[in-house]
Amino acid sequence: MNRQQLFEQIIKKNSFLCVGLDTDINKIPEFLRNEEDPIFEFNKRIIDATAEYTIAYKPNLAFYEAVGVKGWTALAKSVEYIRSNYSDIFIIADAKRGDIGNTSKMYAKAFFEEMDFDAITVAPYMGEDSVTPFLGYKDKWVILLGLTSNKGADDFQFLGNPPLYKQVIKKAQYWASENELMFVAGATRATMLKEIRSLAPDNFLLVPGVGAQGGSLAEVAKNGMNATCGLLVNSSRAIIYADSTEKFADIAKEKAEETQQEMAQLLKDYLPKI
Amino acid sequence: MNRQQLFEQIIKKNSFLCVGLDTDINKIPEFLRNEEDPIFEFNKRIIDATAEYTIAYKPNLAFYEAVGVKGWTALAKSVEYIRSNYSDIFIIADAKRGDIGNTSKMYAKAFFEEMDFDAITVAPYMGEDSVTPFLGYKDKWVILLGLTSNKGADDFQFLGNPPLYKQVIKKAQYWASENELMFVAGATRATMLKEIRSLAPDNFLLVPGVGAQGGSLAEVAKNGMNATCGLLVNSSRAIIYADSTEKFADIAKEKAEETQQEMAQLLKDYLPKI
Repeated sequence: MNRQQLFEQIIKKNSFLCVGLDTDINKIPEFLRNEEDPIFEFNKRIIDATAEYTIAYKPNLAFYEAVGVKGWTALAKSVEYIRSNYSDIFIIADAKRGDIGNTSKMYAKAFFEEMDFDAITVAPYMGEDSVTPFLGYKDKWVILLGLTSNKGADDFQFLGNPPLYKQVIKKAQYWASENELMFVAGATRATMLKEIRSLAPDNFLLVPGVGAQGGSLAEVAKNGMNATCGLLVNSSRAIIYADSTEKFADIAKEKAEETQQEMAQLLKDYLPKI
Repeated sequence: MNRQQLFEQIIKKNSFLCVGLDTDINKIPEFLRNEEDPIFEFNKRIIDATAEYTIAYKPNLAFYEAVGVKGWTALAKSVEYIRSNYSDIFIIADAKRGDIGNTSKMYAKAFFEEMDFDAITVAPYMGEDSVTPFLGYKDKWVILLGLTSNKGADDFQFLGNPPLYKQVIKKAQYWASENELMFVAGATRATMLKEIRSLAPDNFLLVPGVGAQGGSLAEVAKNGMNATCGLLVNSSRAIIYADSTEKFADIAKEKAEETQQEMAQLLKDYLPKI
């Protein structure tokens, strides 16, 4: 999916919601655990319930790897399910990969060829040749870690002058255009989004940390929105684990709709009129 | 495996060789490709051929993920095979993971519980709470990226004063002792190993970049060895792809033995006498 198509979906659905599929076998409702593939069954129901409010899904790879081959199978089936049934939805592999060139190339193959993800999150520590192997796939994206939403972001991301995260955001724009490069920018630091937006005016930002991690959606929109919205705001636990009974999918749908409604208002308030 | 046991293996085998299992389905010998699980068959033969010269194996996760569920299955079988047949060998998941706390916890589960790795490589960008979930498993290890062996290391690892990679190596030692923390220190910058060794006198260093990437083993030993050797030097392509005929395992064995012989001499020259 290219940048224009992504923006069209945002306008069509009046939403910039990304639902994080952090599917933990120990947190899914009891009654699903007897299914042959409980992780996939959970995802399928969450997807069917929330797709109309959602621009992107973001499976978090750790949760699938934690259960080994079963998890990897459930992940592949989930991606395939979204592709077949909701072809206009953007799919992000939240994998935070990044390694020497020949290795990153294999990861790119894993996520863009073996599975049909639209985007992968990448860690910048190893620099240019760890990132560029993910580029050059038509309509596929790298989402590079800029400023993350966790406490540990303070350990290294602010070192140097200008701070490391700003240097990452500046330098990476020499490697790729806004048509294949997004940045992760944590919502727990919404005021810093303003600075990130000024450093990367045209790039989409993937914003985690709204919901369970405590970030404010209104602050994110106010500080981060650009002329093509430029935001994908992720919510995982606050939607997918809002309820743990047989009604979990209905409640997830309500939560996704609530978030979408809030986003519709924010798009009205902050999307520049052209 | 704890630090003392690792050192004992090094003394016993007169080696500090780590063989990287970067097993690429397109590079393994023709005649193995008709096997039911060619990746595992390749690994099995490489392991059987090289185990007597080898302290550690390091499967590179990207190569397994690139072929999806089949790859993940082959990986699990390879780890299991090493555990069952060569219980004294250290197994490293070269995964370069690292994410917010609850996610890193799932990765730890994947590599230390679901599979029985001894260690996992971790990227430091997201800081303390992305690293600590991997700690506290008895006799399991975090191998944190310090200075990597690729060209892109220059993009961010030298930013700041002292440079980022030194700050990573200093700070991480507040999070974990030398009994569960190693660092990646690329061999393509062997002279810098001296500085890294002075910053982390007691930690094991995992040194990639010898062999195909061009680093010198003698330089690594001279600059990096400590009283318990403190080095695991990785070689992947130069051993496992030294030959692509039916004799590939024999040739891999020769290459591993050559490296081990060189290491035996270096241990003699540089291991401090007690």
